[in-house]
Amino acid sequence: MAAAKIRLCVDHPLGQGQSLPLTEAQAHYLFGVMRLAVGAPLLLFNGRDGEWLARVAEAGKRGGTLTCEAQTAPQRMPPDLWLLFAPIKKARTDFIVEKAAELGAARILPVQTDFTNADRIRQDRLQAHALEAAEQCGGTFVPEVAELAPLARVLAGWDAGRRILWADESLLGAAETLAGEAPGPWAVLIGPEGGFSEAERARLRALPFVRPVSLGPRILRADTAAVAAITLWQAALGDWR
Amino acid sequence: MAAAKIRLCVDHPLGQGQSLPLTEAQAHYLFGVMRLAVGAPLLLFNGRDGEWLARVAEAGKRGGTLTCEAQTAPQRMPPDLWLLFAPIKKARTDFIVEKAAELGAARILPVQTDFTNADRIRQDRLQAHALEAAEQCGGTFVPEVAELAPLARVLAGWDAGRRILWADESLLGAAETLAGEAPGPWAVLIGPEGGFSEAERARLRALPFVRPVSLGPRILRADTAAVAAITLWQAALGDWR
Repeated sequence: MAAAKIRLCVDHPLGQGQSLPLTEAQAHYLFGVMRLAVGAPLLLFNGRDGEWLARVAEAGKRGGTLTCEAQTAPQRMPPDLWLLFAPIKKARTDFIVEKAAELGAARILPVQTDFTNADRIRQDRLQAHALEAAEQCGGTFVPEVAELAPLARVLAGWDAGRRILWADESLLGAAETLAGEAPGPWAVLIGPEGGFSEAERARLRALPFVRPVSLGPRILRADTAAVAAITLWQAALGDWR
Repeated sequence: MAAAKIRLCVDHPLGQGQSLPLTEAQAHYLFGVMRLAVGAPLLLFNGRDGEWLARVAEAGKRGGTLTCEAQTAPQRMPPDLWLLFAPIKKARTDFIVEKAAELGAARILPVQTDFTNADRIRQDRLQAHALEAAEQCGGTFVPEVAELAPLARVLAGWDAGRRILWADESLLGAAETLAGEAPGPWAVLIGPEGGFSEAERARLRALPFVRPVSLGPRILRADTAAVAAITLWQAALGDWR
């Protein structure tokens, strides 16, 4: 059996013998770009049913059909970790979303802070980055990327049962360990270049569910801080334990 | 006193009252691009003498002079951590070097592995990326980027007193903690996309100074793995403790 190199995230339910119609864009990618022929294997996932080996049953210019043969991996859900981050320059914002999907975040919330330059994001493009990261990294889950929302509004509606790991760039120094913290619903909060305003910092410090942490003695860029903070959380409280 | 926004890494010794001649490239950057005038403040570091506040004493098209006024931060050396990584696509290789400099690696060694596509790197460009990362992130140290060398040759000449944290992508599962390991000279080893060959894996497993670790249950891209592994090392054994 030829190894399936292509992984595709689909909306359709997956199961033994399941037949899947392809959209025009999917058909263009599989048959036009990747040159798959009838009988070619590929891997599918939909965020719910695990990973499945499928084969091309019909190939056309505008569509086609796949048939599911066998499950190749169970569904793996990430731990209940959200990432709140302030959008920065385009390439670094893309990077943060890609890395959060790879490292196993469940939900990605772009937030506007006092020092955030961006007043809008391309949510569809960021969602596509998260999907591509899952396709390329063997994931079976694609985190949802929310629309941009002001941090103050997000915090006003916050469920106090979800703790926030706040990468507080003013705490340069030894990184506090997360020893003593319990797993469960968490979010990581990363500020923009320039950090948080004094008003934001005062508000965050006053919230009982916010846990400030230092990420070492150096100033990190926002994208580095996002990867480092998710890594520390995953190793201490997530599914890397 | 106006705050100095520009940080510049220089070769020259830094000290009270020290006068520094500028190269043509530095003069172009400071006076042509950044439009600094005589008397303007900037911050300098050279990897040895800490960070200094300096001012423009003379400004010309092809050169100029700075005068050091006062030390603003002590020299901070990173812990004795090297990063060995297999060069991948250009943007992701640049990214790995930038992040290693930010996170506090002391030396960066690009290595050719069995599955590495690159047979050469632009060492000068990568060194410039490390320098720029230090300038932008408030560092006073720039890690040296070595020339590309075959992994087999690097391992053949390895000092057994320096342990290697090997991100072994075949160990998908719970991340092992570094508890029980001692600080000291270490290196982090990250493979290319596609990981290490069976021969390389057998050799690494047999070396007494190599410590294989898992980076969680997901496949990570090489650039993500580099940031995650350095973060775990810094938090457990480095200067984030």
